[in-house]
Amino acid sequence: MKIIVDAMGGDNAPECNVRGALNAIKEYGVEIILVGRGEDILGTLADEGIGDLPAGLEIAHANQVVEMSDNPATAFKEKKDSSLTVGLNLLKNGNGDAFVSAGSTGALLSAATLLVHRIKGIRRAAMAPVVPTGGGGAVLIDCGATAEGTPEYLLQFAFMGSYYAEHVLGRPEPRVGLLNIGAEPSKGTELQRQAHELLTKAGTEGRIHFVGNVEAREAVQGSVDVIVSDGYSGNIFLKTMEGTGLFLAQKMKTMFMKNTKSKLAALLVADGIRDIKKTLDSGEVGGTALVGISKPVIKAHGSSDAFAIKNAIRQACTFANSGLIEDITENIEYMRLPVPAKNGNNDQSTL
Amino acid sequence: MKIIVDAMGGDNAPECNVRGALNAIKEYGVEIILVGRGEDILGTLADEGIGDLPAGLEIAHANQVVEMSDNPATAFKEKKDSSLTVGLNLLKNGNGDAFVSAGSTGALLSAATLLVHRIKGIRRAAMAPVVPTGGGGAVLIDCGATAEGTPEYLLQFAFMGSYYAEHVLGRPEPRVGLLNIGAEPSKGTELQRQAHELLTKAGTEGRIHFVGNVEAREAVQGSVDVIVSDGYSGNIFLKTMEGTGLFLAQKMKTMFMKNTKSKLAALLVADGIRDIKKTLDSGEVGGTALVGISKPVIKAHGSSDAFAIKNAIRQACTFANSGLIEDITENIEYMRLPVPAKNGNNDQSTL
Repeated sequence: MKIIVDAMGGDNAPECNVRGALNAIKEYGVEIILVGRGEDILGTLADEGIGDLPAGLEIAHANQVVEMSDNPATAFKEKKDSSLTVGLNLLKNGNGDAFVSAGSTGALLSAATLLVHRIKGIRRAAMAPVVPTGGGGAVLIDCGATAEGTPEYLLQFAFMGSYYAEHVLGRPEPRVGLLNIGAEPSKGTELQRQAHELLTKAGTEGRIHFVGNVEAREAVQGSVDVIVSDGYSGNIFLKTMEGTGLFLAQKMKTMFMKNTKSKLAALLVADGIRDIKKTLDSGEVGGTALVGISKPVIKAHGSSDAFAIKNAIRQACTFANSGLIEDITENIEYMRLPVPAKNGNNDQSTL
Repeated sequence: MKIIVDAMGGDNAPECNVRGALNAIKEYGVEIILVGRGEDILGTLADEGIGDLPAGLEIAHANQVVEMSDNPATAFKEKKDSSLTVGLNLLKNGNGDAFVSAGSTGALLSAATLLVHRIKGIRRAAMAPVVPTGGGGAVLIDCGATAEGTPEYLLQFAFMGSYYAEHVLGRPEPRVGLLNIGAEPSKGTELQRQAHELLTKAGTEGRIHFVGNVEAREAVQGSVDVIVSDGYSGNIFLKTMEGTGLFLAQKMKTMFMKNTKSKLAALLVADGIRDIKKTLDSGEVGGTALVGISKPVIKAHGSSDAFAIKNAIRQACTFANSGLIEDITENIEYMRLPVPAKNGNNDQSTL
């Protein structure tokens, strides 16, 4: 297994990317290609006291870096010698099994779609993070790769999310729920009502385990393994969870820092506080899978430290080993509508 | 000030509704009309040791009760002698200043719209709860009264939310944000892009203080006083907050109940735990205002206890005293588009 890692993407690049890669080699026995400015990567290795390239590590030189200020839709074309473009071309050409980047989400999404391509028949790639829930986490698909949705997109997201939960999270018969504002099939907008119909059919045919509409509150509490959503609502869901987590973490901090008595309390439940922090820490998961692309691509959080990069590499290995892409490819006929979806073909990816 | 209270709506009716009303009379010196089955209300009063009607309390007899199983759109017509219909007719006819109900949201919304009517020019009434945020709470408008949105609805929600924050929450120049998946005006779907344009214009004209798009994470952390959203996304936002709050509250409970040491810790920060619980408790706020109806209507939570009913009555008084409806009426011309909104006229209210 060989993972291609964008050494230059993210707030803490290249230091944390290089250190994360080194730790992944040690812990998982994986091979890594670090893509980026050779001198920067070697400099970071030198800072770690490493003179010769360790076994399992290669460097692919790329002179440019895609910045957050670059146009996400065109950055990979304008910067042909960027770590993003060089890395994805390595993936495309079979030089590695998966690609990990902590750089711009929009640029990664555009570049992966246009260089590596979607799986044939998949209309939109989806961002599918694993969000913390009372049920030990659920796949949220899509969380914002494409803002607008069509019933067919949601059908494809449901299949891809279900396969992801099964293959990558190891859930044998994932419960797939359609994010909605009520349980009845009539709830929501026309998009949800049409999607409900398609998912019900797929459920009846035994292709996915569709449990119906799921309200956001129940989804967080763990009633499903896969939360199917258009990218706009999925993003609202994800960011509201993050915001509420941060808000309550701040409240807890204030509570524990108040006085000597409260600080003692914090010591007494230090393990528990660590557990809650761990639940809320996106670095634990690693990154967000880009599902629907013909090769495994993982978006690590922009603020990833070495620990998060290492976990994203582990996740990339699991993804590459999972058979997920093969499964989507083999079952693509069940995810397509005979006629193009009514809501049309919207080419904007808005993240 | 006289508040009409649905004695029969909600999970804990009529007991908690009656007790909440009694406490409101005592605490706020408000007059109350309890609407519902006279014998049930008198029975509850008797259980409280009250033989004669206390000063400030009237009973308006209504023999029927709208149940959750009734069709929300037509319940008020089919059950003309329900506490809902009788209560709203009292409001319409000027027998009281505001109406409070903990019954079915959908039935209340339909009945208020069709019996009491919207303010002239307002296209949709909105549910506008005050959600807990790092900024001491924000008005979320709409949270699900109408699932679909049009740019004009969002423009009206922005004005109504701004006036509500100013008049009811006492925020002098409320920061109005459009819920979206990124800060740039190009983000989101066509709905958000068009609404952004309308709100920018209203901001430039000095009619509202529009601060631009707001992401869900920043909204929860308190960056705005008013969160403008279509009902579908607003509902996802609200329910995700609730779910995440419950999820983390459960985690905290597990942490504190683990062993003797952790139980001691809980005692040491008992005040802080109470504060956090209070932050998450919808009963503290009272209820959700139905904004855009020509008279003040408050939806109390279905699970309201006497404390929540009392707070909903307090909120109804503030609403009725605020001049909010007058302000909306006087400024309606700034909230209307010359041509009907492109997304059309959608009559479905889906809660």
